[in-house]
Amino acid sequence: MGQAQQTTQQETGSSRPSLAQIFEPVLPDMPRVEEALASVADVQYPLLAKVLSHVVKSGGKRLRPGLTLLSGRFYDYDLSLLVPMAVAVELLHAATLVHDDVIDDSGMRRGSPTLNSFWNGGTTILIGDYVFAKSADFVASTNNTRVIRLFADTLMLICDGELRQRFSAYQWQQSLDDYYKRIEGKTARLFRGATESGAILSNAPEEVVQALSAYGHQVGMAFQIIDDILDFVGDEHEVGKPIGNDLAQGTLTLPTILLMARYPNDNPIPEIFANGGQGVERAIERIVNSEVIAESYKVAASFCERAREAVAILPPGQWRQGLLDFTEYLLVRSA
Amino acid sequence: MGQAQQTTQQETGSSRPSLAQIFEPVLPDMPRVEEALASVADVQYPLLAKVLSHVVKSGGKRLRPGLTLLSGRFYDYDLSLLVPMAVAVELLHAATLVHDDVIDDSGMRRGSPTLNSFWNGGTTILIGDYVFAKSADFVASTNNTRVIRLFADTLMLICDGELRQRFSAYQWQQSLDDYYKRIEGKTARLFRGATESGAILSNAPEEVVQALSAYGHQVGMAFQIIDDILDFVGDEHEVGKPIGNDLAQGTLTLPTILLMARYPNDNPIPEIFANGGQGVERAIERIVNSEVIAESYKVAASFCERAREAVAILPPGQWRQGLLDFTEYLLVRSA
Repeated sequence: MGQAQQTTQQETGSSRPSLAQIFEPVLPDMPRVEEALASVADVQYPLLAKVLSHVVKSGGKRLRPGLTLLSGRFYDYDLSLLVPMAVAVELLHAATLVHDDVIDDSGMRRGSPTLNSFWNGGTTILIGDYVFAKSADFVASTNNTRVIRLFADTLMLICDGELRQRFSAYQWQQSLDDYYKRIEGKTARLFRGATESGAILSNAPEEVVQALSAYGHQVGMAFQIIDDILDFVGDEHEVGKPIGNDLAQGTLTLPTILLMARYPNDNPIPEIFANGGQGVERAIERIVNSEVIAESYKVAASFCERAREAVAILPPGQWRQGLLDFTEYLLVRSA
Repeated sequence: MGQAQQTTQQETGSSRPSLAQIFEPVLPDMPRVEEALASVADVQYPLLAKVLSHVVKSGGKRLRPGLTLLSGRFYDYDLSLLVPMAVAVELLHAATLVHDDVIDDSGMRRGSPTLNSFWNGGTTILIGDYVFAKSADFVASTNNTRVIRLFADTLMLICDGELRQRFSAYQWQQSLDDYYKRIEGKTARLFRGATESGAILSNAPEEVVQALSAYGHQVGMAFQIIDDILDFVGDEHEVGKPIGNDLAQGTLTLPTILLMARYPNDNPIPEIFANGGQGVERAIERIVNSEVIAESYKVAASFCERAREAVAILPPGQWRQGLLDFTEYLLVRSA
């Protein structure tokens, strides 16, 4: 765990809550989600079945489906709707990871070889499409047009975020707003989709839907910022990607943007981008040894604070506590 | 136009009906479809806008959206539902073409360079995903859970068909059933989705929905068989792909399967597949100069016949005539 991270942990005064604690109120129901996820790999071709099984099981922490169930816990906790929705959310996430790996041509993900590294790109694209399709099928099975529209919208925003990232690659003159817009699409929207859909499917009153929607957005933003911090200070084995990977790919993230804002005339970023992402080592060193990591943690913490404020209107108890604890978990996670 | 094709045209005794004639009952409404399609390219990045504009405008004949509108013409012709559905169907088609081109790494499509040929693969995947997402968004906007489920199912079957094609590549021991299953997913399902959704959204009685669903399936099967014939006898410029492309890619199609059934011990296919698709010229010559092309046309004609039977229960008139004429058009098309 990096130094800056420990500081933040001390500052917030919290110990790391375990995922089992956070999701305790829905833990008995998660096997139904796992079972439905596993069913996606139930296809004719044994080789394809193996690959799909790898995709749906590949060590995800099931944060998003856990949040969907938890968000559905406040009103009618109807598992016949919440389980397919939770599955759809996780599959959408899995599908984007599959395509991301082809796009980035990355060989490792979460410490395991990616599909793309032992399979050819064309098949991997199709497998991603298939998982997308399965995801759409699960969400359609809820027969709820509001969550279906939310899902379609989420899918669009994710692609929009990814396209923004791609089209702004190696451009060092980006604002904080550009960054926020990008990570909203790329990450926060799906967290929002996870929580908002849970609330909608439990027939929660509109103000509760809005509260859980806002919560999902804020934790999603915090989640991506922490990801972007870990890209610099994380443990390569735990994160499962090489350190400085974002910068090497031409992606500006919060620590880098803060570094450039603080040292507009003395930072290595424009040169690295001019060289197509070569020479990130210098930048990593500058960033890790500067105050921008601590600052980035503070920004993430402020998103978590807003997430906690959003759910303040919910009835206190174990379920709300899970959501509150999740914001603590996010800030101190190391992978 | 190939010799075999002319023969078939004479046999069926039909002259080629024009698309303008076929779709005449819905032609005044097609600009609304075009307008909505064009709106997909309305994005922030000028370069991305240009690419998306290329994707949605790239010379498609708009057969599928035309069929959606035409299928919605028998009951409540509600354009506020039928136009988004028609757009969704065409976008889904466009998205699959974009991904197909990355997967096949093909440089030409419909006689134009593919996205993939002047753009890198990663961005093309994302652009395909974006068009998928837009498609889902349009279908969700109908607020009709039945067409939404049909759409999700269609998407799944398309991916399934493509995966089947991929996983059976260069395997010469495939049955006619394997082939039909593959082209049902790859092509017929979307035609069925196009017609069935039009019927559903027009509040047609169930027997009409089923009739139009069956019609869509049958014309879709015929459409793909003709495509597979044109891969051997078509004009390279009109078809927009090199002749024998399927075989070179290891894809068995009807003419090839018929050739192997007729000459099990004297055909070049196993050797070509063993050589990874090299040497297709000999196979093309054998196929073009044998009776299997005429036989394949007969199979396509029998699917068209079943399509005509399916819509026999519909009220006679201009709209049904359009559907009937479309089956004639299919058989004599050259691109």
